[in-house]
Amino acid sequence: MLDLPRRLLAEMLGTALLLAVVIGSGIMGERLAGGNVAIALLANTLATVGGLYILIEVFGPLSGAHFNPAVSLVMAARGALPRSALIPYVLVQLLGAMLGAWLAHAMFDLGILQWSAKVRSGWGQWIAEAVATFGLLLVILRAPASRVAAMVAAYIGAAYWFTASTSFANPAAAFGRMFSDSFAGIAPASVPAFVAAQFAGAGLAVVVDRVFGAEAPFSASR
Amino acid sequence: MLDLPRRLLAEMLGTALLLAVVIGSGIMGERLAGGNVAIALLANTLATVGGLYILIEVFGPLSGAHFNPAVSLVMAARGALPRSALIPYVLVQLLGAMLGAWLAHAMFDLGILQWSAKVRSGWGQWIAEAVATFGLLLVILRAPASRVAAMVAAYIGAAYWFTASTSFANPAAAFGRMFSDSFAGIAPASVPAFVAAQFAGAGLAVVVDRVFGAEAPFSASR
Amino acid sequence: MLDLPRRLLAEMLGTALLLAVVIGSGIMGERLAGGNVAIALLANTLATVGGLYILIEVFGPLSGAHFNPAVSLVMAARGALPRSALIPYVLVQLLGAMLGAWLAHAMFDLGILQWSAKVRSGWGQWIAEAVATFGLLLVILRAPASRVAAMVAAYIGAAYWFTASTSFANPAAAFGRMFSDSFAGIAPASVPAFVAAQFAGAGLAVVVDRVFGAEAPFSASR
Amino acid sequence: MLDLPRRLLAEMLGTALLLAVVIGSGIMGERLAGGNVAIALLANTLATVGGLYILIEVFGPLSGAHFNPAVSLVMAARGALPRSALIPYVLVQLLGAMLGAWLAHAMFDLGILQWSAKVRSGWGQWIAEAVATFGLLLVILRAPASRVAAMVAAYIGAAYWFTASTSFANPAAAFGRMFSDSFAGIAPASVPAFVAAQFAGAGLAVVVDRVFGAEAPFSASR
Repeated sequence: MLDLPRRLLAEMLGTALLLAVVIGSGIMGERLAGGNVAIALLANTLATVGGLYILIEVFGPLSGAHFNPAVSLVMAARGALPRSALIPYVLVQLLGAMLGAWLAHAMFDLGILQWSAKVRSGWGQWIAEAVATFGLLLVILRAPASRVAAMVAAYIGAAYWFTASTSFANPAAAFGRMFSDSFAGIAPASVPAFVAAQFAGAGLAVVVDRVFGAEAPFSASR
Repeated sequence: MLDLPRRLLAEMLGTALLLAVVIGSGIMGERLAGGNVAIALLANTLATVGGLYILIEVFGPLSGAHFNPAVSLVMAARGALPRSALIPYVLVQLLGAMLGAWLAHAMFDLGILQWSAKVRSGWGQWIAEAVATFGLLLVILRAPASRVAAMVAAYIGAAYWFTASTSFANPAAAFGRMFSDSFAGIAPASVPAFVAAQFAGAGLAVVVDRVFGAEAPFSASR
Repeated sequence: MLDLPRRLLAEMLGTALLLAVVIGSGIMGERLAGGNVAIALLANTLATVGGLYILIEVFGPLSGAHFNPAVSLVMAARGALPRSALIPYVLVQLLGAMLGAWLAHAMFDLGILQWSAKVRSGWGQWIAEAVATFGLLLVILRAPASRVAAMVAAYIGAAYWFTASTSFANPAAAFGRMFSDSFAGIAPASVPAFVAAQFAGAGLAVVVDRVFGAEAPFSASR
Repeated sequence: MLDLPRRLLAEMLGTALLLAVVIGSGIMGERLAGGNVAIALLANTLATVGGLYILIEVFGPLSGAHFNPAVSLVMAARGALPRSALIPYVLVQLLGAMLGAWLAHAMFDLGILQWSAKVRSGWGQWIAEAVATFGLLLVILRAPASRVAAMVAAYIGAAYWFTASTSFANPAAAFGRMFSDSFAGIAPASVPAFVAAQFAGAGLAVVVDRVFGAEAPFSASR
């Protein structure tokens, strides 16, 4: 296993690329779709699915490829991440997410520093975020190791559409998207409730995972 | 193997999430597509493919991931499901399907309790449902175990488009969609004929599967 | 291995379902796309990719899943199909293709008996068909056995778009589509030149495959 | 391993088919999409993903399936390609790319000889090309051998959308697209800066790959 500094570098780089994919493809989709939001979200979805798949495959052996504080917290609680690494992991995820938003802006000739003005709020959105994160964690906790990358990518692709919030499912993603006044953005004031809903959903997934326990081929989970 | 109560919980939860994916992505697709039904159905298709894939992978080791009374009936007839479990399986599938519809409504800020007004009827639709369910069961009965999740997902993605009914292929799905007056809904009066066509298609698949028999690598079927 | 009658049944049933997928999803795509041909072809493509993948997986162990006279001819020439089975294979492929077109019509409440009026002609189309079939045979001849279904499906998905003819690449498909006056149809008078181009492309693939020979992990080809 | 002439033939043929896929599907997408550029690019993306996947699977065992001078340079520097083969590889890649553009024109009944007039320039585009090529090389250097084809294809699919340049990420692709005044084209005057950005990105990927080193399951990289 890599030493901690390089694991943190991997986690930061992976999260930055993930946010560049999410935000960049949102910008491209909106620019080209001629006002049809469904087509923009389809493009955003396909890019996210492909990007997430390869990022988990590439960075999984390096840092675990969490890219997500809710995932790191659950992994630390289960002993799959040293507890002393939890705070550093979360910090580099947040830093990477912000840098990824800025990288997307640089590629699309936009001002680097932005704040999103897109309010995302209300019970429907919050339930959706809890459901989205519940599903993500359930997939991560129970996927066979050899399929986790494909399964997480497929899940997020579905969740972009079946949850009313387009499935952030990741506090670092919510943090990074806050810095982009574009298709994938979220107003800073909307972030705290999203994050709370995400941790609630993650907690529920841990409970459900424990109910089903290890009688299933549980050793295959990562 | 899990005890029956937890297998039933898995089956209910999986069916609920499946219906939330199908109905939720239908609502989102229709909202965003600006009246282009093909784009809405494309989004609905992609979400269903991704969702079905991960749900079968996650719940397969727990309950078999039938999510479908026609599948459970065939499995019980073949001895792959204890016959005493058949009725409980079907009941939790129906319950889960209804709860999934309601979860989709909650996420999209819609009234929870609804009845669909979308009539789906006529010989073309019924033939389509029989063909759709025939194909689904043939895939399930003959797929290698390691590929069954991907194959079922790919099949349903195709069947959304090549069958005139958009391929319900599942009595529990028909039951759950009845509770949603949205893109994926079906009027209650249209459900009985759909279910009859589905069981007819499933029966035909059992016959065809027996014709080809076990000379093929049949042990790989699940 | 199955006896010949059941292999022929498998080949006929698989070809029929393939054509039902191709023609049915074309009809559905055109009906829903509101005049945007690209969206109709996207739907047609995705359905064909998913359908082809599962049909090859399901019928491969039964009959080889050729569904295509050009494939059967090449396989017979290589000894991978008994020469006495070639003519029966081709006949049931043609019969299945016609039945598949009719099945699509039945599902979509259209008149069963039709002739396509869509002229597909000219050097661009013919070059495209030769290229499309060349690529298909190259994939089939050199794919690892465990990936051939996914690779053929992925290839045809690409070929629907990069060849000007939308890649029939299959004399049986050309024959079957002749019976459908819909999105995927082809006028009978256009079929002979398409078929000639397809066999030319298949022949070129055999030559190129021989040039590269068996030094590559050739035993993995099917 | 094949002798050099046949490896060069494989590399030329693979690159030609890759460019035929990229340019051909761009032409088809633009023709059918009725002015909606997002739909044209979605079609272009899906065709490229499918085509790249099968081309790497088919030609990987023959020539390594680089299709890309930046990849060949990195491989030569690492000893995975004999240094004496580098220049011949690059030359046949460029030749193949040009021939692929011409093949696409022949299929679509366009004049064979063209020069693109589409200017692609500016810092955003150049950063995008560097990022796109960085990601591509990182995937190639760190992917498990059994997944490299799927991962490269998935990556390029995402990069078509998240980079502002639609991710050429390949000097041979830039060279070949120069010969096509169509959707996927690039004006000759824009090519040198694209190529410089691509090599910069590739160099950065080599550095990052070395930072993470061989403690990860590095033997699986190709």
